[in-house]
Amino acid sequence: MRPLSPDRVRLTDSFWAPRQLQISEATLPQQFEKLEESHRLRNLRIAAGKEEGDFYGFYFNDSDVYKWMEAVAYSLKNHDSKKLRDQLDVAVAVIQEAQEESGYIDSFFQIRHPKLKLKNLNSMHEMYCAGHLVEAGVALAASIGDRRILDVALKFTHYLMSVFGPGKRRGYPGHEEIELALIKLSEFLREPEYREFARWMVDERGKRPTVFEQELEDPDSLSLSPWVTNVLCADGAYKGDYCQDHAPVREHTEVVGHAVRAMYLYTAAADLAGDQQDEALEAALVRAWNNLTQRRMYVTGGIGPSSFNEGFTADFDLPNLTSYAETCAACGLIFWGQAMLEQTGESGYADVIERALYNGALAGIGLDGTSYFYANPLESRGTHQRVPWFECACCPPNIARLIANLSRYVVGEAPTGFFVHQYVGLEASLVVDHIPVQIKIDTKFPWSGEVTLAVEPEKAVEFRLSLRIPEWTEDVSFDLEGSDDEAEYENGYAVFARTWSPGDSIKIDLGMMPGWVEADPRVLDNLGRSALTYGPLVYCMESHDNDFLPQNFTADTEADVTAGFEKDLLGGVRVVEVEGIIEVVQPSEELYPPRGSVQIDETTASFIPYFAWANRGPSQMQVWVRG
Amino acid sequence: MRPLSPDRVRLTDSFWAPRQLQISEATLPQQFEKLEESHRLRNLRIAAGKEEGDFYGFYFNDSDVYKWMEAVAYSLKNHDSKKLRDQLDVAVAVIQEAQEESGYIDSFFQIRHPKLKLKNLNSMHEMYCAGHLVEAGVALAASIGDRRILDVALKFTHYLMSVFGPGKRRGYPGHEEIELALIKLSEFLREPEYREFARWMVDERGKRPTVFEQELEDPDSLSLSPWVTNVLCADGAYKGDYCQDHAPVREHTEVVGHAVRAMYLYTAAADLAGDQQDEALEAALVRAWNNLTQRRMYVTGGIGPSSFNEGFTADFDLPNLTSYAETCAACGLIFWGQAMLEQTGESGYADVIERALYNGALAGIGLDGTSYFYANPLESRGTHQRVPWFECACCPPNIARLIANLSRYVVGEAPTGFFVHQYVGLEASLVVDHIPVQIKIDTKFPWSGEVTLAVEPEKAVEFRLSLRIPEWTEDVSFDLEGSDDEAEYENGYAVFARTWSPGDSIKIDLGMMPGWVEADPRVLDNLGRSALTYGPLVYCMESHDNDFLPQNFTADTEADVTAGFEKDLLGGVRVVEVEGIIEVVQPSEELYPPRGSVQIDETTASFIPYFAWANRGPSQMQVWVRG
Repeated sequence: MRPLSPDRVRLTDSFWAPRQLQISEATLPQQFEKLEESHRLRNLRIAAGKEEGDFYGFYFNDSDVYKWMEAVAYSLKNHDSKKLRDQLDVAVAVIQEAQEESGYIDSFFQIRHPKLKLKNLNSMHEMYCAGHLVEAGVALAASIGDRRILDVALKFTHYLMSVFGPGKRRGYPGHEEIELALIKLSEFLREPEYREFARWMVDERGKRPTVFEQELEDPDSLSLSPWVTNVLCADGAYKGDYCQDHAPVREHTEVVGHAVRAMYLYTAAADLAGDQQDEALEAALVRAWNNLTQRRMYVTGGIGPSSFNEGFTADFDLPNLTSYAETCAACGLIFWGQAMLEQTGESGYADVIERALYNGALAGIGLDGTSYFYANPLESRGTHQRVPWFECACCPPNIARLIANLSRYVVGEAPTGFFVHQYVGLEASLVVDHIPVQIKIDTKFPWSGEVTLAVEPEKAVEFRLSLRIPEWTEDVSFDLEGSDDEAEYENGYAVFARTWSPGDSIKIDLGMMPGWVEADPRVLDNLGRSALTYGPLVYCMESHDNDFLPQNFTADTEADVTAGFEKDLLGGVRVVEVEGIIEVVQPSEELYPPRGSVQIDETTASFIPYFAWANRGPSQMQVWVRG
Repeated sequence: MRPLSPDRVRLTDSFWAPRQLQISEATLPQQFEKLEESHRLRNLRIAAGKEEGDFYGFYFNDSDVYKWMEAVAYSLKNHDSKKLRDQLDVAVAVIQEAQEESGYIDSFFQIRHPKLKLKNLNSMHEMYCAGHLVEAGVALAASIGDRRILDVALKFTHYLMSVFGPGKRRGYPGHEEIELALIKLSEFLREPEYREFARWMVDERGKRPTVFEQELEDPDSLSLSPWVTNVLCADGAYKGDYCQDHAPVREHTEVVGHAVRAMYLYTAAADLAGDQQDEALEAALVRAWNNLTQRRMYVTGGIGPSSFNEGFTADFDLPNLTSYAETCAACGLIFWGQAMLEQTGESGYADVIERALYNGALAGIGLDGTSYFYANPLESRGTHQRVPWFECACCPPNIARLIANLSRYVVGEAPTGFFVHQYVGLEASLVVDHIPVQIKIDTKFPWSGEVTLAVEPEKAVEFRLSLRIPEWTEDVSFDLEGSDDEAEYENGYAVFARTWSPGDSIKIDLGMMPGWVEADPRVLDNLGRSALTYGPLVYCMESHDNDFLPQNFTADTEADVTAGFEKDLLGGVRVVEVEGIIEVVQPSEELYPPRGSVQIDETTASFIPYFAWANRGPSQMQVWVRG
């Protein structure tokens, strides 16, 4: 199973399509300005010898330029834009000029440490940047036929492959990324050598003595990242779990360390495992996936609770107020989930993608399209707000490229037929047995669970149509109009294997209802608490909608709730009203009175979708409410 | 009102007296060994030129030697000890030898930076160390007539007074301490000049431009503590709240910054305010006290929730799992409370002292007397354990000196009579109108609220006996045996103003009962939670006593509880049994099931006093339980 190529699917719905337009019109132009303002493009110009000056910012800042270009590639396919094309041309020229004759490109090292290139793979992110360069190159070539960055990326890739590889120097990146990029490169060029280079890096990782362990002995390497022992070692011994270098990937049993790194590694590994039916690798990935989704994932699909390592801690450690849950990590979870879905066809992976997409990832960008979260807590006491940019700005272009390229995650095809993974209104073009087929999906999802799917083959043709049954539904129906054909159920999909004729149409009712979930009681932070959901959407209380703090509310989870669409609120959202009680805050000199002293009132609270919070100025917010 | 001198009161009870013996026999000898092992005494020997070597450890480590000596002084009064006297002699000789001819002593600067002495008052703690030297000198002279350290301390004090003072250089310490020490010095020597020097330092503090603000412009000063701008400045501007340098003390409205520093400052300020009926200073202290005790104090009397600044954050910000609540800060709260109590005679200050003493401070030392907490969280998920020593070891000698000197906080006298602030079994000697009076208090407090107080004057004599009515009681009785005399109530004390004859005795029933308290609903971390108390003791659940995690328990706070003394548990404690429910933890693949999925069982939970937790190996613990 694989995604449809971007020229064969177009989102047409009222939820995602306007967001894709906003990415084109607001987000990406704003990010280009930030790339300029923040010295990121200038670093490359200085490396190219076109400007005087010193490197400024984080040593991996080139990657933000590349990731932005990748997002631009997808976006230009959705919506052509003169402005974006012009901005793209500026960035492309800068990068072309900065690349050295050898193929090497990394402005930090070119400006600051030309003699220390590739000396420190554990922290210095040259390969990470290279990976994003490759992804940008592939995306631009595939989406709009622009091969300029692909050429740069290939030249750098060939340089890296001349240094590293079997029989050459051993090496792999501290921050995984190039592996999944090389796989995309191989797929696009239909040349296996890049994929095999990626496979070698994935296989070498974690074998003792590891590359990073050895780098700790090298003064040159250590001089570049003297802090790294804090994250790579514990009790005086090398651990490496921070960058998944604690053990070979096939021995992994749980997700550890930096969350984004882990997601990128496993995304590549999932592709590699499927490619060779590598059962040991598949088994490790399933173990890690289960550990992540059954023990270490927020209800929002956010992952990586700790700011210390930007990553994982322990099973069921999911604090709400301090949750890190980086936007990039939710994006990474979607990437990995998609790779697993494509390998297995099991709907559980699409369920997790949906959870992360509508909550933990989407919350990473404001409704204005130009403000961002890095961390995505599940509770706020008033200080957490989106900002227009970050010193470390990985998240803004990551959420932009995810949304611009969303069609990749929504529908898919296999030799046997067509898959609907996510319910998004769209138009898609298939060719089955040389017969063109148009698919049209019409829905107000996620504000309604009613979906109409029309199949328009040029003439009758047989294929399997697989429609995902979401994990959150308890009552779903698939009604093939004018036919008694019933779906079979397979891997969490309702499958219609039949001959389709022009005018065929399926009415789907996903049975979307507001409901309460609780957490496994080992999640100590959620004990006695419930979260309101509506289909894939996790809801929260925000202080703007209530005249008391969300934290002071206790929900009556047995009572009926009412849900109404408010078109003028937050770009149009379904608001859910919940009955419950609040503690009344009154002036008091007694900090610890006898129990029962505090006045309790009955009230009704308004809940909004989590992704939409923090768009109206400072506020308090809570997902897991008492009750 | 003032404490009784140490030779006139002796604790005889079964709770504190054994602890004082343990301080003598176990704690202080162990701490001396740690002072040696940790290079603290060696630093001073190197400064004296008696050994070769470099300074090791924190630059303020001399203070731990001084604070240990102060504790030894009190302890030798309680229990003479050849071993402690020998250890004291070692320390005294080292200090005498290290002191320079000028009077200066601070081994860090003597060894490392002899040309940068007193260049950096904001961080370098020379005055802080001097204060502890003075306190040790006074304590040794007052308790056991040993003036050797007093002489050293006076010499350093005179040196400091030759450098700083009105008409000389402006200066005061980044970490307050010397102010309260100088006041003790004045009181002991009955010479006002030291108190006036302290008053000058308190008065100068916070006046713009402040001393520390100016030091930030001095490269020499900044070279000693390059990190200090992180804590002293915000948004590029000097703030100073970290060390209470944000405003003159008389303008303070709330407690800010490093908690121990604030407590030590206000302890001195309370004495100074009372000395001159300084109403502006008194008003500022009451404002700060009310802010602290009504908005920023844990139920345990722990204060300072944040590890970032080892101090205060915002009103009602009292997280349980991450509470810092340094042992020294609880000690400091007791010091300040005592100073306020002595100035005002109001029982509320003694209430707070009692709360901190039996909970937040006492938890700082293990039942073995040789293991310590620096931070005192109100919840643990298994990783918080007492240890034998710290790199920064302020807390161990602080809790030792508090317990060794406890009689200071228990009873007091004024020209008009005798006060019982804390209910501890003891024998005290008064002289009223030249008539000797013995007071004997007999009680099993805090395991019982029954107290017998016997008054034995040599012959009948009139005086006021004031007995504190604890804030936690709802039903207290004072029964003067064989008499109808009734107490009057004044400032939270029951006052018997009468003629006392040999054989007079009062039976006191403090009405001690287990009970539940809740928190002001602005304490968001405690919403929906209750804490169990028994008199002054705050209770907690520890996993050792229950076959489920404390966090999984919800108390039925309406149900009766049972409380029984278990003499073999934790040195003898009253255990309270509470009915409630738990979530049953079962293997599950579903992290977020529909609400109502988790099995709930009824159970009974055992609670122990908070101070006694973490004495049986790793455990989970919770003070604020659901219910």
